[in-house]
Amino acid sequence: MEKIKIGIIGAGRIGRIHAENLGRLHEAEVLAISDPFADDSLRKWALELGIGLVTTRSEEVLDHPAIDAVLICSPTDTHVPLIKQAAAAGKHIFCEKPVSLSIEQTAEALEAVRSANVTLQVGFNRRFDRNFRRARELVLSGEVGQPHLVKITSRDPAPPSPEYIRSSGGIFMDMTIHDFDMARYLTGSEAVEVHAFGSVLVDPVFAQYDDVDTVIVTIRFENGALGVIDNSRQAVYGYDQRIEVFGSGGSVAVANDYPNTAEVHTASGVKRDKPLHFFLERYTEAYIEELKQFVSALGGSIPVPVDGRDGYQAELMALAARHSLKLNRPVRLDEARQLRKLATTHEGGM
Amino acid sequence: MEKIKIGIIGAGRIGRIHAENLGRLHEAEVLAISDPFADDSLRKWALELGIGLVTTRSEEVLDHPAIDAVLICSPTDTHVPLIKQAAAAGKHIFCEKPVSLSIEQTAEALEAVRSANVTLQVGFNRRFDRNFRRARELVLSGEVGQPHLVKITSRDPAPPSPEYIRSSGGIFMDMTIHDFDMARYLTGSEAVEVHAFGSVLVDPVFAQYDDVDTVIVTIRFENGALGVIDNSRQAVYGYDQRIEVFGSGGSVAVANDYPNTAEVHTASGVKRDKPLHFFLERYTEAYIEELKQFVSALGGSIPVPVDGRDGYQAELMALAARHSLKLNRPVRLDEARQLRKLATTHEGGM
Amino acid sequence: MEKIKIGIIGAGRIGRIHAENLGRLHEAEVLAISDPFADDSLRKWALELGIGLVTTRSEEVLDHPAIDAVLICSPTDTHVPLIKQAAAAGKHIFCEKPVSLSIEQTAEALEAVRSANVTLQVGFNRRFDRNFRRARELVLSGEVGQPHLVKITSRDPAPPSPEYIRSSGGIFMDMTIHDFDMARYLTGSEAVEVHAFGSVLVDPVFAQYDDVDTVIVTIRFENGALGVIDNSRQAVYGYDQRIEVFGSGGSVAVANDYPNTAEVHTASGVKRDKPLHFFLERYTEAYIEELKQFVSALGGSIPVPVDGRDGYQAELMALAARHSLKLNRPVRLDEARQLRKLATTHEGGM
Amino acid sequence: MEKIKIGIIGAGRIGRIHAENLGRLHEAEVLAISDPFADDSLRKWALELGIGLVTTRSEEVLDHPAIDAVLICSPTDTHVPLIKQAAAAGKHIFCEKPVSLSIEQTAEALEAVRSANVTLQVGFNRRFDRNFRRARELVLSGEVGQPHLVKITSRDPAPPSPEYIRSSGGIFMDMTIHDFDMARYLTGSEAVEVHAFGSVLVDPVFAQYDDVDTVIVTIRFENGALGVIDNSRQAVYGYDQRIEVFGSGGSVAVANDYPNTAEVHTASGVKRDKPLHFFLERYTEAYIEELKQFVSALGGSIPVPVDGRDGYQAELMALAARHSLKLNRPVRLDEARQLRKLATTHEGGM
Repeated sequence: MEKIKIGIIGAGRIGRIHAENLGRLHEAEVLAISDPFADDSLRKWALELGIGLVTTRSEEVLDHPAIDAVLICSPTDTHVPLIKQAAAAGKHIFCEKPVSLSIEQTAEALEAVRSANVTLQVGFNRRFDRNFRRARELVLSGEVGQPHLVKITSRDPAPPSPEYIRSSGGIFMDMTIHDFDMARYLTGSEAVEVHAFGSVLVDPVFAQYDDVDTVIVTIRFENGALGVIDNSRQAVYGYDQRIEVFGSGGSVAVANDYPNTAEVHTASGVKRDKPLHFFLERYTEAYIEELKQFVSALGGSIPVPVDGRDGYQAELMALAARHSLKLNRPVRLDEARQLRKLATTHEGGM
Repeated sequence: MEKIKIGIIGAGRIGRIHAENLGRLHEAEVLAISDPFADDSLRKWALELGIGLVTTRSEEVLDHPAIDAVLICSPTDTHVPLIKQAAAAGKHIFCEKPVSLSIEQTAEALEAVRSANVTLQVGFNRRFDRNFRRARELVLSGEVGQPHLVKITSRDPAPPSPEYIRSSGGIFMDMTIHDFDMARYLTGSEAVEVHAFGSVLVDPVFAQYDDVDTVIVTIRFENGALGVIDNSRQAVYGYDQRIEVFGSGGSVAVANDYPNTAEVHTASGVKRDKPLHFFLERYTEAYIEELKQFVSALGGSIPVPVDGRDGYQAELMALAARHSLKLNRPVRLDEARQLRKLATTHEGGM
Repeated sequence: MEKIKIGIIGAGRIGRIHAENLGRLHEAEVLAISDPFADDSLRKWALELGIGLVTTRSEEVLDHPAIDAVLICSPTDTHVPLIKQAAAAGKHIFCEKPVSLSIEQTAEALEAVRSANVTLQVGFNRRFDRNFRRARELVLSGEVGQPHLVKITSRDPAPPSPEYIRSSGGIFMDMTIHDFDMARYLTGSEAVEVHAFGSVLVDPVFAQYDDVDTVIVTIRFENGALGVIDNSRQAVYGYDQRIEVFGSGGSVAVANDYPNTAEVHTASGVKRDKPLHFFLERYTEAYIEELKQFVSALGGSIPVPVDGRDGYQAELMALAARHSLKLNRPVRLDEARQLRKLATTHEGGM
Repeated sequence: MEKIKIGIIGAGRIGRIHAENLGRLHEAEVLAISDPFADDSLRKWALELGIGLVTTRSEEVLDHPAIDAVLICSPTDTHVPLIKQAAAAGKHIFCEKPVSLSIEQTAEALEAVRSANVTLQVGFNRRFDRNFRRARELVLSGEVGQPHLVKITSRDPAPPSPEYIRSSGGIFMDMTIHDFDMARYLTGSEAVEVHAFGSVLVDPVFAQYDDVDTVIVTIRFENGALGVIDNSRQAVYGYDQRIEVFGSGGSVAVANDYPNTAEVHTASGVKRDKPLHFFLERYTEAYIEELKQFVSALGGSIPVPVDGRDGYQAELMALAARHSLKLNRPVRLDEARQLRKLATTHEGGM
């Protein structure tokens, strides 16, 4: 079989991880990587991985005649133009989440993808986590009956830098967006309305950027099922990622992963080590599986596992949540886009 | 020490359990029990327990000169008049939850208790569960730092009868009220605003009585902490009662109790028995502890563990949740009473 | 139904617990209790429980014409004479473990019981623990197939006093005997050979009394299944009582009971409270169930759940283990009695 | 840094896994692989991994001037001659367990290694498992005090083929040997005496080869601590690998790894997926870590983590266990070698 030739745009942490993971797949090959800050260290790393071309210009990747597909791992505000260029160049696309901070621009990007008839996968890596996948399988197989409630906990070990916060698009677009996608994935149903409560409890810097650090978002789904997501920017015990789906036939719950199974009993109690501390540890395998499936989808053996519409819907939920927080009332997804227009003065804020 | 003399009004399931539990306390003695449907079977049961007086008339209990305190275990709509009579007779009072379905009447009952200077304890039994008490201790001792999030799951094994549903006051007043109290107990903080989503997913009979069977209620507390409660009238795997308090220093979570610790590994998977099936099994010890503390409070050795204001606040939260569901918007507790007046046409509904 | 009338011999800790537990059974009634050290405190306690006769002389209990059955809760060296007297008086008998420290005397006691045609139940309380019972049910129902391995952990929270150690009959007769019975109970099979390794690691006082404090005993059963018991006189984290049965179809394992289900996550790890600390807490319900079944067996509704032969076989296993430790070789049960004769110089030691 | 150049002898399952794992290390490089059955499929696999030389002759690897170290992954009966040749050629050596089925030959191999002053690491991969390593760390850091008891469970998901059984050296040398090493690793102490009970319960074919399939081995350590190992050739629920170290300060226990954390509650109970099914899944990371440390040891940054003496001692324990089973008595390690000589007629059996 011919290997799928891949180019990567953006050589930050996640771009490099994808490159290394692709290096282990027999079906794919990374030909090029671009980054405006490409330096000798990057060149050395690329050399070891056998990546032939390292450049500061994304165009060199996008125009590379041998390349079949590109991974867009650059900052969020570059996603939409890059998607349009890649689509125009006939390249298939894997794009990190979110597609953009603007639902209208995301819609334009999806339209470009559609016109060019290329494949787009959005980087919701958690769908590929063995725990969440097993939960999804159990829901699909009817083990818990008709879903009534879905509960998602997602807490980061520590808040990001102020710079990151400023351009993050706010907690809903940056962090909860994964959970919005998870809610849709687990229930197989669309949200119709969203309500959010939020607070600044971790660090006042969030208030400075019109953002919050602690939220509870509730969701009403088409079929009457209800959902809830709780987020915190700081769980001192590490990365906390759990879900539960409760239905007419029972429930399935997924716990965190721990670094080991050792349990200690002493005179002062029972203890074990805290959960895996960060997303790179928790989702090591998920990142590998994510690209495996992207490559398989390009090869035609499976449908694309997370498509543009998945990206769009999660963003729409994030947008509705943001409006809900601002307006202090539940917001329907079908009104979220309209409200968006009224709210443009908040541009750049959460 | 002189034993505290107790009379019980209402000889249903919970009245009898309380009588049997009091029978094991050295500090208390049940002198009388009343029930409009008192019959030979009740008399036989009372005889075995050494309860001297069995009557169909609550007045005989309330006016009994030797009785120090009464337990009000009769239907909810009798609570307020009975509290007023008991207070007027100078009896201390233990009253099952809720005090009433009307926040104004509850306020009147509390006023009567205050005027008469008697003690009132409200029957929020879950506060006495060893698991929840341990969680509360850990929060109080600062183990999890400042609370940021409180999560409460409370699901019944099976829905009640249509007759019960009709006069229950609706899911928030009948079922969630325990969780509202638990939220205040765990955080030690007051709610300021409540939002509810609800659905009828278990049985259409709930819709018939203007009620729902599946809810997610979110709470905003005075100090910015957030809370969420999820309820279902039917968890096929049994009684599901769990909580989590997450804070600046970590989290404490309480799991269900199971009938045994046996775990089976076979070729088809790992299994164990489902959780304790009903509240009487789960809270056996809690009911004993609840009355022990009532008796201790009457003896003056501890403050009353759940007082009238606790009863009132939980009802106010239930009222706010009901308005939220009807109005499809968050409702502040300080407006809930006013809204109540506008909403009197719903009287008798949820 | 006529209540079964019971007398208790020995008013130590366990005698009183049995009396209190019998007080809650409708089918039984305690008429008398004897103890050589009976005093006013005991009389006061008996009065509250409604026990009519308190005496220093066991004869008064044994000769009491109204008494149907006696509970022998006095020191081990009085068991055999008391069993003989009770049998001669036609009383049914519940005797705490072990029946005696001498397999020959135990045999005599059983013969007396047989001749008098009375019922004898031996106090192996752990068979009535909900966890172990569930394991036994699962084995019986074939969930784990044919048993191949049985593993029993049994560790005390703290060593007994030197006085207790001196007259305990040694660790195998005092402590492991429960586990020998558990091994037979769980597998439903008889041991044919036993091997023991032992050490003094907790306290040198054990060596002083020719005893050990840490043992691993292995067992070969009739059907080829193998077993292992590990004991320590001191687990600093509390009472440790677990089992596992592994077979051709899988395994069933029973964990300890904990005082609550609260689990705390902090920056330094995950913790929960240690197991229930002592046998009275762990086996509260088991002691109640044990006497319930004794009373039921006397009433004829069930066979006696732990009979004299059960007591004898566990003692024989303890004897074989003791010989094994002394001889440093495996010892067959059918040779243990013979070896006993050769070993009489060790009388009084372990 | 100069990469360490490695040759692999034996291209079976484990040889290939090691080659692939080495491929991910920056500090090492596989130059050659030999296997008597080397074919096109092996050549294709080697090509993809960039291994330059594929040969049917081990000499080509051993004599390769550029190679620093060899991995011996060929059948057990070839280990000793290959170790001698490798040592003579001045190559460092990683050898799969056991070094040999003959304690005398193993001693000769170790002598050759010593004379040549090369490094030898023996393939006890379980020491590199994150769970067991964490247990070891906790013991070393004094968390459980002085070790008193060590318990090891090790059960395979399914018995090997009759051919494998025939040449396996018996269960103690083939399977329990890992546990003997684990017992030494966890306690940091040497065994002085061993006792074994064994049965044929899984498959009569084991009896045919003078072997057993179910064993319980107990161990007495130098410092008085005691140990027990239970093995079965068939746990229908998958690979079962657990340990517990109990000491004066508490205990540490290590549970199995499971494929995911999903737990399902339904009306019929609570279930989750069974443990990881086979050693390649359970020890994926351990195999990587094992070679990482071998390479680090060759680089001089850490001492060799499992040396020849570790291999020898585990074999000696296996030998003592085998004698114990045959003689039906405990066997001291210092007599095991002598007994070996008397027992040569059993050569080829267990």
